Amino acid sequence: MDIKALRTAHPDHWNKAAAIRTLTLDAVAAANSGHSGMPMGMADVATVLFEKHLNFDPKAPAWPDRDRFILSAGHGSMLLYALMYLTGYEDITLQQIKDFRQWGAKTAGHPEYGHARGIETTTGPLGQGIANSVGFAIAEEIQRATWGKKIVDHQTYVIAGDGCLMEGVSQEAIGLAGMQKLGHLCVFWDNNNITIDGTVDMADITNQPARFAASGWHVQEIDGHDPVAIDAAIIAAKADPRPSMIACKTHIALGHAAQDTSKGHGALTNPEQLQAAKELYGAPLGAFEVPAEVKAAWEAIGARGAATRADWETRFATLSDTKQAEFNRAYAGEAPKKLSATIRALKKQISTDQPKVATRKSSELTLQAVNPIMQETIGGSADLTGSNNTLTADMGIFNPENRKGRYIYYGVREHGMAAAMNGMALHGGARPYGGTFMCFTDYARGSMRLSALMGIPTTYVMTHDSIGLGEDGPTHQPVEHLAMLRATPNTHVFRPADTVETAEAWEMALTSTSTPSVLCLSRQNLPTVRTEHKTKNLTAQGAYVLADAEGKRQAIIMATGSEVEIALAARDLLQAEGIGTRVVSMPCWELFEAQDEAYRRKVLPAGPVRVAVEAGVRLGWDKWLMGERGNNKKAGFVGMPGFGASAPAERLFEEFGITAKDTADMVKSLIK
Amino acid sequence: MDIKALRTAHPDHWNKAAAIRTLTLDAVAAANSGHSGMPMGMADVATVLFEKHLNFDPKAPAWPDRDRFILSAGHGSMLLYALMYLTGYEDITLQQIKDFRQWGAKTAGHPEYGHARGIETTTGPLGQGIANSVGFAIAEEIQRATWGKKIVDHQTYVIAGDGCLMEGVSQEAIGLAGMQKLGHLCVFWDNNNITIDGTVDMADITNQPARFAASGWHVQEIDGHDPVAIDAAIIAAKADPRPSMIACKTHIALGHAAQDTSKGHGALTNPEQLQAAKELYGAPLGAFEVPAEVKAAWEAIGARGAATRADWETRFATLSDTKQAEFNRAYAGEAPKKLSATIRALKKQISTDQPKVATRKSSELTLQAVNPIMQETIGGSADLTGSNNTLTADMGIFNPENRKGRYIYYGVREHGMAAAMNGMALHGGARPYGGTFMCFTDYARGSMRLSALMGIPTTYVMTHDSIGLGEDGPTHQPVEHLAMLRATPNTHVFRPADTVETAEAWEMALTSTSTPSVLCLSRQNLPTVRTEHKTKNLTAQGAYVLADAEGKRQAIIMATGSEVEIALAARDLLQAEGIGTRVVSMPCWELFEAQDEAYRRKVLPAGPVRVAVEAGVRLGWDKWLMGERGNNKKAGFVGMPGFGASAPAERLFEEFGITAKDTADMVKSLIK
Repeated sequence: MDIKALRTAHPDHWNKAAAIRTLTLDAVAAANSGHSGMPMGMADVATVLFEKHLNFDPKAPAWPDRDRFILSAGHGSMLLYALMYLTGYEDITLQQIKDFRQWGAKTAGHPEYGHARGIETTTGPLGQGIANSVGFAIAEEIQRATWGKKIVDHQTYVIAGDGCLMEGVSQEAIGLAGMQKLGHLCVFWDNNNITIDGTVDMADITNQPARFAASGWHVQEIDGHDPVAIDAAIIAAKADPRPSMIACKTHIALGHAAQDTSKGHGALTNPEQLQAAKELYGAPLGAFEVPAEVKAAWEAIGARGAATRADWETRFATLSDTKQAEFNRAYAGEAPKKLSATIRALKKQISTDQPKVATRKSSELTLQAVNPIMQETIGGSADLTGSNNTLTADMGIFNPENRKGRYIYYGVREHGMAAAMNGMALHGGARPYGGTFMCFTDYARGSMRLSALMGIPTTYVMTHDSIGLGEDGPTHQPVEHLAMLRATPNTHVFRPADTVETAEAWEMALTSTSTPSVLCLSRQNLPTVRTEHKTKNLTAQGAYVLADAEGKRQAIIMATGSEVEIALAARDLLQAEGIGTRVVSMPCWELFEAQDEAYRRKVLPAGPVRVAVEAGVRLGWDKWLMGERGNNKKAGFVGMPGFGASAPAERLFEEFGITAKDTADMVKSLIK
Repeated sequence: MDIKALRTAHPDHWNKAAAIRTLTLDAVAAANSGHSGMPMGMADVATVLFEKHLNFDPKAPAWPDRDRFILSAGHGSMLLYALMYLTGYEDITLQQIKDFRQWGAKTAGHPEYGHARGIETTTGPLGQGIANSVGFAIAEEIQRATWGKKIVDHQTYVIAGDGCLMEGVSQEAIGLAGMQKLGHLCVFWDNNNITIDGTVDMADITNQPARFAASGWHVQEIDGHDPVAIDAAIIAAKADPRPSMIACKTHIALGHAAQDTSKGHGALTNPEQLQAAKELYGAPLGAFEVPAEVKAAWEAIGARGAATRADWETRFATLSDTKQAEFNRAYAGEAPKKLSATIRALKKQISTDQPKVATRKSSELTLQAVNPIMQETIGGSADLTGSNNTLTADMGIFNPENRKGRYIYYGVREHGMAAAMNGMALHGGARPYGGTFMCFTDYARGSMRLSALMGIPTTYVMTHDSIGLGEDGPTHQPVEHLAMLRATPNTHVFRPADTVETAEAWEMALTSTSTPSVLCLSRQNLPTVRTEHKTKNLTAQGAYVLADAEGKRQAIIMATGSEVEIALAARDLLQAEGIGTRVVSMPCWELFEAQDEAYRRKVLPAGPVRVAVEAGVRLGWDKWLMGERGNNKKAGFVGMPGFGASAPAERLFEEFGITAKDTADMVKSLIK
């Protein structure tokens, strides 16, 4: 590249972009770690976007109607941090730039949601940002339709790299966005032809513009270092009713000795080469120096949004107090006051009616009560609507003809669904839930982990949660998935035993503000075990005594979900033989762990034999069997020894020895 | 559709295809469960493929040079079972068809590899089959180049549905296959415009032919019920040097009342509608009846391959005995005899040299010794070659210009890599391994689970296995992944402590025939802890005493991988205070579990305080801390309380309290 030509053609632009490049070089050099090349390659695009298009106000990073900027290529985090520092976000000071990648800094190796106000989402695992952005754009469409353009009318911009586009989840995002005609979504592809292993064509020859166009996107191809072309492309993208992809031909590590090489992707720390690049840029040579006039120009860009935001606030103030409160409540992630009473009423009804239904049906019953009073819920399923029971009558289907619809047919895209739901939760004003078969958490793991890491209350409706699904066989039968989910930090894994527990689990999920929830639900019918109505949400305690021992307490049977029925039947067998048996339902381990020790000790007292029943693997159960004052000589597990099989469900429970009799026999063998 | 026109245009073809349709209808009706519509829609394509093109011999289902037929849309399993029964595969009798989806049947709900000889791979989780097929085709290309066309020259055919193509992993497969110009791969897209939720356009408007073409595929569009068009398209596909996609416009549940509806996707069990469809087909009305002449025609198709196979065997016999033995050894999945001595020599050298290197480097050292003596290894990385250290000097890069290369640049495609590796392992004659960052097992889970379920020895090289990776931060730091992998049945999870253990783990992985291996390797340097050479593979026992207590044994510290160093240092601190401490290295829990109780008891005797050290979550550790005659009052865990953070690695271990001092302190607090 002829850097001098670029400098002289658009000197003001150049100097602003150069500040991004030099801050990146200096921060990576100081950290001796990080990724220099991407911010250096995309500095021009980012500069034009922030200068001329992005509606944002660094003084109000949570302003609901701001445009969203998502750095899907999260390894280029210094691009984001430099922009935030330069435009005046309070959380990203120069010191933070200097502390890049150090303990306690807000400027983590990859952008971490929650570290600094203004970071819209956590990125780094490739493809997540572009897949999040579909959720951001869906939330915006729904809210624009619901609240009107005066209240909600903003764009979602994404920078994605070659890596993002090679990840499969990007195809799920592209397909969904194209079908949904998300016209306020604009993806910049950093087309630098470099990945870590070398040039892109060593692994991929995909014509990306053709690929996006095949899914209904508006596509442009530009020189990613030409500010005039960038500006024109963004204008055209905004004008087009389809989602837009702008292929930006760029040079990774522009102007550095490592330009256009895979070395340029990583940490460029050689001092001489660093200085040479700065000289080429005509930038100050000192570390972390930005000329005062350049900083001022950037701050002016940052100040640009204040008036726009003020205008918005004036418009927002014209809404009725009730509407303002409703808007603010949803953005605060608070459940409506009515929710608690609604759940209680449902529980009471169920305790009386005592239906025998699958918990996936229980979930539907709950959603039928909840969705009408919680307009911010956005439901969906990865092509299993009738199996996941996630659609209720009043929702409407979201599609290009019905922007007020609150239910999304995600298609066979579990990963894309999870990522999109994260985007909706991050956008604000939306509470997403979505369903698939529990086994296919495997496909969605990349995004489910990020729900937990970001601390956002995405809700996963995972039905067909064991061998109880029957004939579809081991490919569809989760056995390790409960353990996997429980191993994931900051994740509430609910496995309710009946409709009452399901309603309680939903209440926890819908009132959560910083933890995702996974509802593990049965395909098969289950009896109501909570036949005595309690106002209190017992599931909130994680575990509780469902049926206590009569006579001397000799055994405790712990169970979750569909196996609570088995535990109760085992108790009947044992009590008939005079063996006093307590049944503990454990719908959510994490919430039980969060109780004080006195409560846990009350539920699981030392002494009796302990047996756990769960149609999954044992891993994790030893904590409750032997920890918490248990005893390894008096503990046993009734569950799956490995993968399942294809047969009717009842036969499978018999063959794998997960029955009341097996459970009672184990208790007796341990008592002897 | 005008069924009568189809019947009269090609009556012989029609009757053969009708047999597939009626067997499907009858089997699903008998099971009262399953998926009727897809086999009914794709029966014509399958009939032409099997009749005119597929090289196969039902009497020799493992014949190495057979064409592979992969049913990616695995829910349509009856298509495969019907074809296998009709053409005469011994394992799929009429009784098996009648027992569809029943306990113990080979005809599981979805095709299960290993249930019946002739099922090439387990499918059902959508997208897996098409992604496997890329591995099948790569293995074929490499072997064709290596052994010559006379020995290896076959095609891989795939049937994929709309669901397969919506899954992200399909894009990874399409991209990889297109770049690699896998000309012997042919995908039939069952373009029926129906998914479970309704018509495809409710979730996707992707122009699939354009999408494939964008990645360099040869694309054709045909009427999937016209046998002449199908035949011509397959001929053209075989002639084209690119991978081929044939878009087959079909009618799901052809001829049934549910034709062209999402209801047609599922189980069609209404007896009247079933009979009406049979009448329309001109097929016998009795359940499971196939006219004798139609069965004979199908058996003739099955018999067609015997001569081709005999010719192949004649050609194979012309190879030298050594070459035949080498070919057969690789196909049997047996390691060369030299492997054991090679590993031993490396171990001995390492015990003497005592290098301080990362275990990812240890892995490279092992591969440098192994790859030259094991020509069947096929290595690769998902764009992290230099970080995973998976490429050794002699391998050569596999690409369209070098078909003998044994190393694959998979691109940023963890899921596609895992699925392709499964395909190679299933193809035979290949032993695939591939690397990524351990955190991105999240992306590959869908295929990793299938390695385990199928019982194939795919090897995953997962580097950067803890907070020890440092500055990249929590998005890249696995904490729950060891627990997740250990929860997965039939998976060997190795976390070696040094180069010796790494070499031992590789030996286990390379000699495994029915279990996948995951090698969890450090980014950071680790000292050699196995300084005394032992011929025996201690890692094969899963856990062993690395350093015993001096004096009275008061504590046992268990550790894996990079934390073994910490355990040893803690032992030094404790021994200095007179506290006799044993250190147990536990590189593979699953292998330790497989030892007899006497050995486990010897390694973990009852009595002493037990502390485990691992830079991951605790879930699962309670088994060793409190089970196996441990005691919950004398057990503790030093590890991660949740997600990691971005900072230099050393700082992270300090901040999270995973140090020798923390470990020794915990031991002391428990002894008190």
